[in-house]
Amino acid sequence: MSPTQTVTPQGAEILCIGTELLLGEITNTNAQYLAAELAKLGIPHYYQTVVGDNEARIHHALEVACNRSSLLLITGGLGPTPDDLTHAALASFFGVEMVEHPQLWEEILRKYGQRGLVPSPSNRKQAFLPQGATILPNPLGSACGLIWQPRPNLHILTFPGVPQEMQRMWQETAVPYLRSLGWGKEVFYSRVLRYWGIPESTLAERVAPWLAGENPTVAPYAGQGEVRLRITGRAPTREAAEALIAPVVEQILQVSGEDYFGSDEATLASVVGELLLQRRQTLAVAESCTGGLLGQLVTGIPGSSRYFLGGIVAYDNRIKEQLLRVDPETLRQHGAVSEPVAAQMALGTKQVFGADWALSITGIAGPEGGTPTKPVGLVYLGLADPEGKVEVHEYRFGSLRGREGVRWWSAQTALDCLRRRLLRYPLSEGSTPERPDP
Amino acid sequence: MSPTQTVTPQGAEILCIGTELLLGEITNTNAQYLAAELAKLGIPHYYQTVVGDNEARIHHALEVACNRSSLLLITGGLGPTPDDLTHAALASFFGVEMVEHPQLWEEILRKYGQRGLVPSPSNRKQAFLPQGATILPNPLGSACGLIWQPRPNLHILTFPGVPQEMQRMWQETAVPYLRSLGWGKEVFYSRVLRYWGIPESTLAERVAPWLAGENPTVAPYAGQGEVRLRITGRAPTREAAEALIAPVVEQILQVSGEDYFGSDEATLASVVGELLLQRRQTLAVAESCTGGLLGQLVTGIPGSSRYFLGGIVAYDNRIKEQLLRVDPETLRQHGAVSEPVAAQMALGTKQVFGADWALSITGIAGPEGGTPTKPVGLVYLGLADPEGKVEVHEYRFGSLRGREGVRWWSAQTALDCLRRRLLRYPLSEGSTPERPDP
Repeated sequence: MSPTQTVTPQGAEILCIGTELLLGEITNTNAQYLAAELAKLGIPHYYQTVVGDNEARIHHALEVACNRSSLLLITGGLGPTPDDLTHAALASFFGVEMVEHPQLWEEILRKYGQRGLVPSPSNRKQAFLPQGATILPNPLGSACGLIWQPRPNLHILTFPGVPQEMQRMWQETAVPYLRSLGWGKEVFYSRVLRYWGIPESTLAERVAPWLAGENPTVAPYAGQGEVRLRITGRAPTREAAEALIAPVVEQILQVSGEDYFGSDEATLASVVGELLLQRRQTLAVAESCTGGLLGQLVTGIPGSSRYFLGGIVAYDNRIKEQLLRVDPETLRQHGAVSEPVAAQMALGTKQVFGADWALSITGIAGPEGGTPTKPVGLVYLGLADPEGKVEVHEYRFGSLRGREGVRWWSAQTALDCLRRRLLRYPLSEGSTPERPDP
Repeated sequence: MSPTQTVTPQGAEILCIGTELLLGEITNTNAQYLAAELAKLGIPHYYQTVVGDNEARIHHALEVACNRSSLLLITGGLGPTPDDLTHAALASFFGVEMVEHPQLWEEILRKYGQRGLVPSPSNRKQAFLPQGATILPNPLGSACGLIWQPRPNLHILTFPGVPQEMQRMWQETAVPYLRSLGWGKEVFYSRVLRYWGIPESTLAERVAPWLAGENPTVAPYAGQGEVRLRITGRAPTREAAEALIAPVVEQILQVSGEDYFGSDEATLASVVGELLLQRRQTLAVAESCTGGLLGQLVTGIPGSSRYFLGGIVAYDNRIKEQLLRVDPETLRQHGAVSEPVAAQMALGTKQVFGADWALSITGIAGPEGGTPTKPVGLVYLGLADPEGKVEVHEYRFGSLRGREGVRWWSAQTALDCLRRRLLRYPLSEGSTPERPDP
């Protein structure tokens, strides 16, 4: 959609009410849930607002929202305590009375009774809704929501802030209601392509021809280390949306090169696992500064026991000598963080575990331990291949990322080294030559 | 503050820009971070808005925000791609030109150069800011922010959407700037007491007398595994706020018992590290289902090389036999996930590494591999002590937490076992008998 200078009320707005959100005490996962649900239904959604439990500011937020949006999804402020104002603020904003719904009070009595409890007098207000609103039932808790059309081009739905209750009410009542209004005729469907080792700007230029598309849309995002391309299609059914984006995905993959590592839920660790499985090969690792993170990433993949034999965390130099068979003289001469030690660690690990491939990491994670010639962030990655050849890569991740950052980049980069090497390594006989599913 | 019917521009508003937020692709953790930071500084904060990468709607959001708020914190939309519009939209909204800052371009060239990369032409736009705005430096990435006072009673600060970069810029530049403006005169200061192995409701009952306090406030929160008590004082200076909460912290610690493990930034791993240092003892670990996570947690603590010797990830049973000296007959008879194997793994590790203490973990993380007698989530933790005695604990974490959950609980529980054991282990001669700083 191209920018216009006038904003007409259209699309959905999410309004979350709760002082705890303004104090940063909780994360606003309700907004994310409803946003993703709106996208699935193809309902355009342009604004989200958060406001505290304060009538004047709720009124202000309603004034802004009702002038720019035609569907208002409100969460929070439906409880029994004095700071729960949502329904009363809606009534006063639209100038109507609050009306009691006896069946709501009976429902509250019944729910409390089931748990052997008696509601307090303050619960009584949960049986009142603005005049003209209908009940949006809450099968789980005592806070019911409402469905209301206070003006011709404006629909309002309210939900409690408790995520489980909100989600259940959304699925059971709100979605069918919105479909009955004619919304949700179009479906949005997305694929995510993941890249490593390419800056966002370079990738964006490489896929520039597709960035201007309107349906499907193609959008790049920079994450930590990886860059993602999201391809989103809009169509009457999920199948049609899938068919719409398939050729674009195919074309983009053709210009993606080796920086592309996988799609959707893929991680570097899962892709390395697939490549090893295809080649029926095994992996072992030796870690110093990462302290187990590399092994943890590899074994985070269900079924990794089919290709991962194990690892050694050699934090102490004696362990590097005894378990990884690193030459004490090399350690003395070059230090533990050095190219020859990384090479010997990889070869030693390959031998000790009897693995096809071995990765080694030795480096200075900081914040202490850096020197002018070996600063914090200096890392050597060793990779021993099935033929017993070893390659070592030097990286300087710097000190700005912090200890956790250096460790994380080291482990991920090690996986990426192995991934690129495996891509060029022939498939063993009898294995199925399949490309990782994009 | 009591409700009023007119809204005058005052307080802070957080404006997050990014279509990915409207599509529900990411959780808005930036809003929570900034909200909590504003609360710490005592800066009133009444609204949050989310809007997509669309100039007209960014203008609309700015119009609303500038009329009700006097401090605008904007995140997102500072990247090099065409959909990154934040600074350009600010310039057009306030009717000024974009001006190039040559030092920003040099900075981008330098940052890319360090990684052996060359910026693309599209990065050039990141060197432009609206006329009159000054640079809010980004020490980590290429997207700098701005500090701008486009009108007398309006301050605007922008940050990239990447949380690490935003947080660093907030702490280093934004907070001192806001203090220089006179904000943050009342300081909120909090201490967090951390507990493991006690339900939130039990802890809340134990500290009930303090929960009703108004200054300081005491609030319990249930996190993953741990339960936290946050004690917050409000005063003109940090020192005064500290003095206000100190006696309450002291009183609560007196009723806390061994479930309390540390304060503020403490983790189970950091506390175990302190206890080992006090006793001048060393640790080694053997991991099966956790795949390196335990070692990673231990080595996540700076200076852990003073007490951590290393670990073995024995994913394959042969490795358990060869490296950890587990008896093949025991493995055959009881299986890898069993009490005797956990015991032998711990003892073998202690021997191989020559460590004072050794922890071992063997279990079924799932989702596959469970049986009726050994279900997913069954985990044995072994602990060998300096005298060579070994204890094994059985846990059933269930399958509901998922693979990552079982692994995480296993590693943390192992650390907690060792922590409780170390608390009861005498300090060695000559070491300083100090209690972990609360």
